[in-house]
Amino acid sequence: VTSSTYRTASLQENTELYLGIDGGGSKCRSQLRNAQCRILGTGLSGPANPVYSFTQALESILDATRQSLREAGLSDETMANTVAGIALAGLHIPQLAKTLSEWQHPFKALYITTDLHAACLGAHQGRDGAVIIAGTGSCGYCSVNGQHITLGGYGFLLGDQGSGARLGIEAVRAALLALDELGPQTLLLDILRDHFQCEGMLLVEHLMNAKPRDYASLTPLIFSAAEAKDAVATALIESAASYISDLAMKLQQHKPPRLSLMGGLAVPLTPWLDQTVTDLLSPPLENAETGSIYFAMREHKKNVTTA
Amino acid sequence: VTSSTYRTASLQENTELYLGIDGGGSKCRSQLRNAQCRILGTGLSGPANPVYSFTQALESILDATRQSLREAGLSDETMANTVAGIALAGLHIPQLAKTLSEWQHPFKALYITTDLHAACLGAHQGRDGAVIIAGTGSCGYCSVNGQHITLGGYGFLLGDQGSGARLGIEAVRAALLALDELGPQTLLLDILRDHFQCEGMLLVEHLMNAKPRDYASLTPLIFSAAEAKDAVATALIESAASYISDLAMKLQQHKPPRLSLMGGLAVPLTPWLDQTVTDLLSPPLENAETGSIYFAMREHKKNVTTA
Repeated sequence: VTSSTYRTASLQENTELYLGIDGGGSKCRSQLRNAQCRILGTGLSGPANPVYSFTQALESILDATRQSLREAGLSDETMANTVAGIALAGLHIPQLAKTLSEWQHPFKALYITTDLHAACLGAHQGRDGAVIIAGTGSCGYCSVNGQHITLGGYGFLLGDQGSGARLGIEAVRAALLALDELGPQTLLLDILRDHFQCEGMLLVEHLMNAKPRDYASLTPLIFSAAEAKDAVATALIESAASYISDLAMKLQQHKPPRLSLMGGLAVPLTPWLDQTVTDLLSPPLENAETGSIYFAMREHKKNVTTA
Repeated sequence: VTSSTYRTASLQENTELYLGIDGGGSKCRSQLRNAQCRILGTGLSGPANPVYSFTQALESILDATRQSLREAGLSDETMANTVAGIALAGLHIPQLAKTLSEWQHPFKALYITTDLHAACLGAHQGRDGAVIIAGTGSCGYCSVNGQHITLGGYGFLLGDQGSGARLGIEAVRAALLALDELGPQTLLLDILRDHFQCEGMLLVEHLMNAKPRDYASLTPLIFSAAEAKDAVATALIESAASYISDLAMKLQQHKPPRLSLMGGLAVPLTPWLDQTVTDLLSPPLENAETGSIYFAMREHKKNVTTA
């Protein structure tokens, strides 16, 4: 969709607009809609994880916002007519939530929620439901009758048992154990040697500054090894799948009307899940930035009604 | 031993002296001996891991050296009469080994070896043998008939299955799984909650910048939980002990005359090892800085004989 298509909406700059932001560790996505929920523009900018850099997160948010406005043929000043919903990670940190609430933002109104809540609202078109994210990290989230439950999401060192980063790390660990002949032999040793062109301590040095996403990028190699009937790779994937199945059954206890599995591992991992779990899954309907818009619309309506 | 005791050695500043250095991630230890192997002085300074900071490692080495000389009642200029043996981590990195070999050092002669080799030479008074280090990290090393074998030592993320850091990390992981009711209930959840005064995502945030030694400091809590018959803590310690037992049996294949278990976990972990393994263990006889002196004396003798 080009900006000219959006311009046919023939917006007046004083029309009420809704902006949805999904800020993540590597990208920030935005979406602009009018009060009738029609998409007017979208944007994509850089990292927006306030845990790592608050300043950079705000810059990425504003950058993505301006892109959405430009695509809609609107000036930056239109932000003053825009009700914004912003979804971010790290809001469980009290200091971060406080700093963000004190932001002198340029919007008509600002409503902030967690990245998980927005993903869930998006997946279920603003209605109650649950989501499991199996991507670089892993976690579960459920929003039913105003109750919000989060499970996992503790990062690649202390959790994320159903994530790509964890799978990659466990594959390297298994290869190093096999190299030392202190663990079962595995194709992963050869596969990772070919991939990195080194092994042992040199591989460890090579990975010294590796990020979770670097480990997550190894998952296709692990699925290949499992396809070639490697017992170690198979066990690693089974363990990740079993965690995701456990998450699903735990979320199901809260009786969400819908449950969606999302993230880069959703497709490759699905055949490994328990049949009981795959029977429960429904596809996500919309993205997290749309979820942020649903959130902003709902919260703003409450505020306006109250006022 | 005070410096006056050492001064009774009534050294002439032109006597040949031997310096041994053991540089580690948090401390650098030095020892000065005369040609008759009598200890003249010792020193203790800061971090000397060249992987993290080469400049700081050299500073710590020189600082510890000066302390040894001062304790022996000798001036800094005596370094020119001193044959130094320096043991450091990270020497498997080609660039690091090259930079170190180009160092314009102040010694009469300088011989460099790995921290593991020095620990092994110390443990067995300069003779062949093997060591297992179970401390913040874990690894095995064997030096027999001029052959050197290293096993493990890949760090807390990718290896160190018999280490304090790994035990600590696994305990936190188990507690977080129990909190989410996605893993077996465990006393570790209560113990770590009491210890950190928080749990869940706040605990994860609290540990965001935790170092391996911070996780290793949790090991007494895990041994307490195991003593109280907690199944999860027991399984974690059994797994670490099983890795150390495997390391021992693997090293034993090289027929080392002696095998020593060292590091902060050596004492608490010994009762958990296989009986076959504990029967193989002999106590370490001397420390790694003494091992560095043995190394320097031997290498220097070769050089002098050759010249």
